[in-house]
Amino acid sequence: MKTNSQGSRTFSASLDIDSRLWEHDLKASIAHARMLGRQKIIDTAQAETIIAGLLQIGEELALEMSKGVIKFNPEAEDLHSEIETRLFQKIGVAARMLHTARSRNDQVATDTRLYLLDEVHLLCDNLLDLKKELFQQAQLHLETILPGMTHLQHGQPVSLSHHLLAYFWMLDRDQQRLNDSIKRISSLPLGSAALAGTGFPIDRIQVQRELGFLKVSENSLDAVSDRDFVIEFLSHGSLIMTHLSRLAEELILWSTPEFGFVELGDEVTTGSSIMPQKKNPDVAELIRGRVGRVHGALMGSLTMMKGLPLSYNRDLQEDKVHLFAGLDTVGPCLRLMILMLQKCQWKPHRMRESLRKDFSNATDLADDLVEKGLSFREAHEVVGRLVQTCLSAGKGLEDLTLAELKATHILFNETTLAKIPHLQVMKARSSQGGTSPEAVRAQLQLAEMTLTL
Amino acid sequence: MKTNSQGSRTFSASLDIDSRLWEHDLKASIAHARMLGRQKIIDTAQAETIIAGLLQIGEELALEMSKGVIKFNPEAEDLHSEIETRLFQKIGVAARMLHTARSRNDQVATDTRLYLLDEVHLLCDNLLDLKKELFQQAQLHLETILPGMTHLQHGQPVSLSHHLLAYFWMLDRDQQRLNDSIKRISSLPLGSAALAGTGFPIDRIQVQRELGFLKVSENSLDAVSDRDFVIEFLSHGSLIMTHLSRLAEELILWSTPEFGFVELGDEVTTGSSIMPQKKNPDVAELIRGRVGRVHGALMGSLTMMKGLPLSYNRDLQEDKVHLFAGLDTVGPCLRLMILMLQKCQWKPHRMRESLRKDFSNATDLADDLVEKGLSFREAHEVVGRLVQTCLSAGKGLEDLTLAELKATHILFNETTLAKIPHLQVMKARSSQGGTSPEAVRAQLQLAEMTLTL
Amino acid sequence: MKTNSQGSRTFSASLDIDSRLWEHDLKASIAHARMLGRQKIIDTAQAETIIAGLLQIGEELALEMSKGVIKFNPEAEDLHSEIETRLFQKIGVAARMLHTARSRNDQVATDTRLYLLDEVHLLCDNLLDLKKELFQQAQLHLETILPGMTHLQHGQPVSLSHHLLAYFWMLDRDQQRLNDSIKRISSLPLGSAALAGTGFPIDRIQVQRELGFLKVSENSLDAVSDRDFVIEFLSHGSLIMTHLSRLAEELILWSTPEFGFVELGDEVTTGSSIMPQKKNPDVAELIRGRVGRVHGALMGSLTMMKGLPLSYNRDLQEDKVHLFAGLDTVGPCLRLMILMLQKCQWKPHRMRESLRKDFSNATDLADDLVEKGLSFREAHEVVGRLVQTCLSAGKGLEDLTLAELKATHILFNETTLAKIPHLQVMKARSSQGGTSPEAVRAQLQLAEMTLTL
Amino acid sequence: MKTNSQGSRTFSASLDIDSRLWEHDLKASIAHARMLGRQKIIDTAQAETIIAGLLQIGEELALEMSKGVIKFNPEAEDLHSEIETRLFQKIGVAARMLHTARSRNDQVATDTRLYLLDEVHLLCDNLLDLKKELFQQAQLHLETILPGMTHLQHGQPVSLSHHLLAYFWMLDRDQQRLNDSIKRISSLPLGSAALAGTGFPIDRIQVQRELGFLKVSENSLDAVSDRDFVIEFLSHGSLIMTHLSRLAEELILWSTPEFGFVELGDEVTTGSSIMPQKKNPDVAELIRGRVGRVHGALMGSLTMMKGLPLSYNRDLQEDKVHLFAGLDTVGPCLRLMILMLQKCQWKPHRMRESLRKDFSNATDLADDLVEKGLSFREAHEVVGRLVQTCLSAGKGLEDLTLAELKATHILFNETTLAKIPHLQVMKARSSQGGTSPEAVRAQLQLAEMTLTL
Repeated sequence: MKTNSQGSRTFSASLDIDSRLWEHDLKASIAHARMLGRQKIIDTAQAETIIAGLLQIGEELALEMSKGVIKFNPEAEDLHSEIETRLFQKIGVAARMLHTARSRNDQVATDTRLYLLDEVHLLCDNLLDLKKELFQQAQLHLETILPGMTHLQHGQPVSLSHHLLAYFWMLDRDQQRLNDSIKRISSLPLGSAALAGTGFPIDRIQVQRELGFLKVSENSLDAVSDRDFVIEFLSHGSLIMTHLSRLAEELILWSTPEFGFVELGDEVTTGSSIMPQKKNPDVAELIRGRVGRVHGALMGSLTMMKGLPLSYNRDLQEDKVHLFAGLDTVGPCLRLMILMLQKCQWKPHRMRESLRKDFSNATDLADDLVEKGLSFREAHEVVGRLVQTCLSAGKGLEDLTLAELKATHILFNETTLAKIPHLQVMKARSSQGGTSPEAVRAQLQLAEMTLTL
Repeated sequence: MKTNSQGSRTFSASLDIDSRLWEHDLKASIAHARMLGRQKIIDTAQAETIIAGLLQIGEELALEMSKGVIKFNPEAEDLHSEIETRLFQKIGVAARMLHTARSRNDQVATDTRLYLLDEVHLLCDNLLDLKKELFQQAQLHLETILPGMTHLQHGQPVSLSHHLLAYFWMLDRDQQRLNDSIKRISSLPLGSAALAGTGFPIDRIQVQRELGFLKVSENSLDAVSDRDFVIEFLSHGSLIMTHLSRLAEELILWSTPEFGFVELGDEVTTGSSIMPQKKNPDVAELIRGRVGRVHGALMGSLTMMKGLPLSYNRDLQEDKVHLFAGLDTVGPCLRLMILMLQKCQWKPHRMRESLRKDFSNATDLADDLVEKGLSFREAHEVVGRLVQTCLSAGKGLEDLTLAELKATHILFNETTLAKIPHLQVMKARSSQGGTSPEAVRAQLQLAEMTLTL
Repeated sequence: MKTNSQGSRTFSASLDIDSRLWEHDLKASIAHARMLGRQKIIDTAQAETIIAGLLQIGEELALEMSKGVIKFNPEAEDLHSEIETRLFQKIGVAARMLHTARSRNDQVATDTRLYLLDEVHLLCDNLLDLKKELFQQAQLHLETILPGMTHLQHGQPVSLSHHLLAYFWMLDRDQQRLNDSIKRISSLPLGSAALAGTGFPIDRIQVQRELGFLKVSENSLDAVSDRDFVIEFLSHGSLIMTHLSRLAEELILWSTPEFGFVELGDEVTTGSSIMPQKKNPDVAELIRGRVGRVHGALMGSLTMMKGLPLSYNRDLQEDKVHLFAGLDTVGPCLRLMILMLQKCQWKPHRMRESLRKDFSNATDLADDLVEKGLSFREAHEVVGRLVQTCLSAGKGLEDLTLAELKATHILFNETTLAKIPHLQVMKARSSQGGTSPEAVRAQLQLAEMTLTL
Repeated sequence: MKTNSQGSRTFSASLDIDSRLWEHDLKASIAHARMLGRQKIIDTAQAETIIAGLLQIGEELALEMSKGVIKFNPEAEDLHSEIETRLFQKIGVAARMLHTARSRNDQVATDTRLYLLDEVHLLCDNLLDLKKELFQQAQLHLETILPGMTHLQHGQPVSLSHHLLAYFWMLDRDQQRLNDSIKRISSLPLGSAALAGTGFPIDRIQVQRELGFLKVSENSLDAVSDRDFVIEFLSHGSLIMTHLSRLAEELILWSTPEFGFVELGDEVTTGSSIMPQKKNPDVAELIRGRVGRVHGALMGSLTMMKGLPLSYNRDLQEDKVHLFAGLDTVGPCLRLMILMLQKCQWKPHRMRESLRKDFSNATDLADDLVEKGLSFREAHEVVGRLVQTCLSAGKGLEDLTLAELKATHILFNETTLAKIPHLQVMKARSSQGGTSPEAVRAQLQLAEMTLTL
């Protein structure tokens, strides 16, 4: 056998991954120690010594952190033993009492939940910020028209506001989902001990309150082996990334020379000394590419849990690899997307130009005939023929004169002519949720309500 | 090139898959027609003719359904054209008016949401039924003890009630998640038309109310291209299946001759004429195996959405393949799990036997010494040596006499002896969420509250 | 509990899915029966009766098939029992002898491998056909230039031949992978019996030869529980679909009005009566969307196998759901892609137009200066300034006159001017594997060799 | 907006991930420089200066590496610029010439392939080592019997050799797959330049030979955007992990007190000071849990590639995240599995005990009657009744006396009695690939051939 470059110890160790939980681990330990003291499970003075020691470790670690990276002892198997060792070095044998009435199993589950709660709140802020950015830009572009696409073909003209707001609502759902998940993350496992609870007269409610959890876990076997909250987060994160990948795709597409609907900022593109006009949309591409990390983490965490018997199994240590992969992707991608939007220079002229002769105003011409009493089928035939004529002549419907229209069908008149311009076509779609400026203004009001909640 | 066994038409057709939406499609069309009439967009009489035609089609299809399977015209490309054709055959050209102010894009999104809402309510009922089954069995086994496992090694004795309730809470979270998702499914896309809304004076609120949606969609581009609700459902379904796979794994494990903790019912096993004692846990295995279908559907739907520009793209037609794969798996698996539990014959005797000499009562012996003032480390050393002695002698701690105990350490006494039996060890874990009968009774009360909501 | 719409029997049944294996099941049974007879394990006459019965069933099923769909008895649990029942009806108790020295476990594994072998050969043919189509079109477009993209930005001009051949090589690797996998599929499990082999004096080599397998499986426990070949196929299928999704994406993109590089055929698009010019690339979108089915099936099958102990477990029944989902997607998508390419009308004019003023010829201008002795950095500065000037003037580099060039830098001369046209830029890239016509001709020769193997 | 903790630069940077490619990057650059010199594209002396500089950088980096971790400049965007900067510091402007006729796009693809080739060879060695370990143990246990399981129920007795060899063949297929993939990894992209090839008179064959690639890539567009080899590796890695997860599952199961078929070594388990007999199979659990990482990386890389247009897109930078996640999991898991097997103490006594009264010898009793002329159905009925009698009497079939047998059926005799012991049942399964010692010996011969190739 080859020399084993990674021994069993290294293989099992988790410090490398867990280390970022140190603040939350200390916080949970302090709450636990305080409770043990109040409940007289350990001596009150001992509890105070422990708490003081933990606070001191916290200060030291914060200091190390501020200088760069914390140097944990590479011999330590996990974060908990590393902190225990430090505590022992500070306060001696009293350190041992901290582990009364708890185990690694409920401790690590508590730390991870505390950590995720903080992260989810940050992500909700990021989502809110991105929604605000979209909202602000949407306020400015109610009459900026561009081709609304289905099948990436021109369907009907829409306003840029309306287009941007489509993403607003996707992200609003993302925020809702994260909010809904909080009540499931915020359940305190501490006090479940290894798997069966404990005989010590602990007061879990007290710890729950100090740590800000919404409730205590109902069942100890479940509490130490539940990783639903990790998977649920990765599900929601996968949807966030899916939305960002769609927006990124459009920005990539729109910044091609062929589309030219947008010019991305230098901050989010890479250029070429020799071709100053060229901007590669690297950040948008990376956001689109990183959707794979979160989908992968979701799949990985689901695979990890499949068919695991109760209760704690060491497989669960893998939860954090997947969770952190998700967190380290979603947050930065959201923040970069905000920057990318801030630096977008929309090109209304190119958008309008793209609508020229695209016949996305044909439906309104047919509707005009229908309103004047023609049957649906006849109206479509008339307009179909007219489009064909325009195509042959290299014209758009918007190029037709009143005379040409009238020559085509007796029911066409001035009213018809007024309906043809793309801007008018966009403005006509005034149903609730539609693209007309008045409908979009109503939509903006709804959107604003979700910003001020 | 080989003869093309599946032409472009067959390839694009979706009737085969969509056909199960017929009831919801009719329901949505009726609401749409009624609104068109009330809003004078079409003639009221025409609206009534359309509604009557649709109701008649509904009756006919229900009749066909009751006789077996509905025979749709294989030439029809999709469900909507099939129904339109039938309507045209009944009421003539008036049928054409039904499509005023709507498109396939908002129609199919509406149908799918209506359908999923019904299915999610059914699944919530299934989850509730499974929770009830677990609850009822948990009420009976507060003192049935078995080895509580970590790492599939004996940790501490727990009650069967406590073990079953661990699954109760997993399923309770599943139910919560489905409930939370309803507000996102229940958003009406109809009225978004192809992508941009419509100029017809439609009243979307009226349709929303008739169809029982909680709100109308805010943005037409989003509405016709949003499939978050499908992915979110498959995420929640994946977690449900994960939970079922864990319970299935335990039932498979527990019904091995080596464990023998349970005998599964004939209804959910297959046997052998020659080995009447042998029961293969086929249903449990299939449930465990089918978790892959839902994980696969989740990944498939996420892949489908990655990087899609706005708005409707034909890729979205694939949503139903994945959604139905999920629905057709989760519901049956939940219902079969209920049956499987109903037919379980637990074997308390084998469970108890398995605890014999397993030393899962050692911790309590050490705690006894700690309570009497010994340090944690010393106590563990004493008990460790005692376990070693028992191992050599082929005994369990529960086989020790008072004299033997006292000979081991001066602090051991009658109190100690009383703490040794596994049943006592289990009863001692009385912390909130612990396995002791009193803690489990409190847990059952919490559980009951979720059943009567 | 709700009425159970799907009972345990239905849940476990697999006939619905397995039924397509009937031909392969019969073939394997015939080989098995013949061997049993030759080895005197059963009476030779009995073997002949069985074979005759099976052949007759085959004819009947083929006839039913030709008339539409085979009507299997819905009561039958699986395909094997259905065929056994039919055999029993034909030849009486002798039918029972067919199951000597085999079990469902080795039988179904054999059927699935036989079936997959046929399908893989068909897919290799499809891949070959698609490669041929690309090859033929590539032969025609050595001087059709279009912008070669990186980051979806213009990089350097390439020929359409070169672009199409990029896909050729992807598909060639796909074909290689499928070919490599054949030796692993083509291992005969039959004779492994339920799990441990058999005491009957069977001759597995004889059966292997009759069925055309390359070898017999080496280990019975492995043979009945191995589904690697399903997962490996789905891996390769996922890559095929990935390649098709990329080509589909480009066709969708290129057929937008903004790009306009291609017009797709009516056979693979849907149109609009009112907008005759509009063609939605539905088939391309569906191909792109269906990549999710195969990725999902791959993940589903991997999930199914995770952590399964030896040997056969009922979970494995799920293999066919995933396998067939893969097969039913990959083949049709390949065939539709061929059709789509056949019907493509490339638009060389639009491609060329897109290159105008895109400065993708700037690098060659700088290289010219480098060749004439300028440092890399200086050359880039000179050309960068020149591009900037052109941009201000609304010109492309190709619009520059010799005088303008010379005025810019003393080293520019007639040679420089000749290098500027995009066509020339493309032709200059003559390194092995490059886009110049001569390099592409060499590439076509390599390509042809893979077609005639 | 929140302070952006991760700016656009950090977001795009890849040095952190790419840094491990340094050796392969240098190697490729040296070959490239040598070729540029030989082809007179750059001055020969310049080429030598460059090569000397690169070699020196290699020595320095190797030295840094040997002392711990290489300190790359955190400002560097990627590995290539880091090395270029170092080269520039050493040899001045000549460093700039190295980038002639290549780009980042072909360079990074070359580095990754070179790196993966080395890793795949190491993994093949690891697979071989694990196969050897299984082979050696299999040689020792031809008559060690244990229950062969289907559905995790006793099927028929098998030998431990046979059981271990089942895994041998899985790993043999894994090795085959990796071997097959080498020809696809070993294709040189260098010389494809950014996307279209180059006009410089490069000699790609020369570089290919120096770097040990099997061929040069055929198409430059494909070469810079192909990541099939990453996905293919992750597919094969997923299967390896699937196999390891199955073996890990069995070791976990077998080391439960209920099974007790194996005792795992202290090196791969964690214990308890208080319960010296308790060994948690942590390494086996981690191996089982880590399957999720590789499945996740596979899914992630497939997602990354979906729908990407030609040619290079920045999304592709993500390839290494997934590739390295796979490599960092598979290798260590293979090596730990070898260690785990080396330290296994099998418990033949417990295996045999488990077979007692399990009726897995019933089939052979029925076969005895069939051989003596009874019909299959009658034989099964007789034995079924006999098993029932034994069950009532708390006996196994192996406890029956000749008299009892004869009393049951007239055809039972001494021959029958000899067939009943489980060991005899195992020995009887002598078909090719079966579990009898003679069949396993033949299997071992086949196995050995794959070890000495």
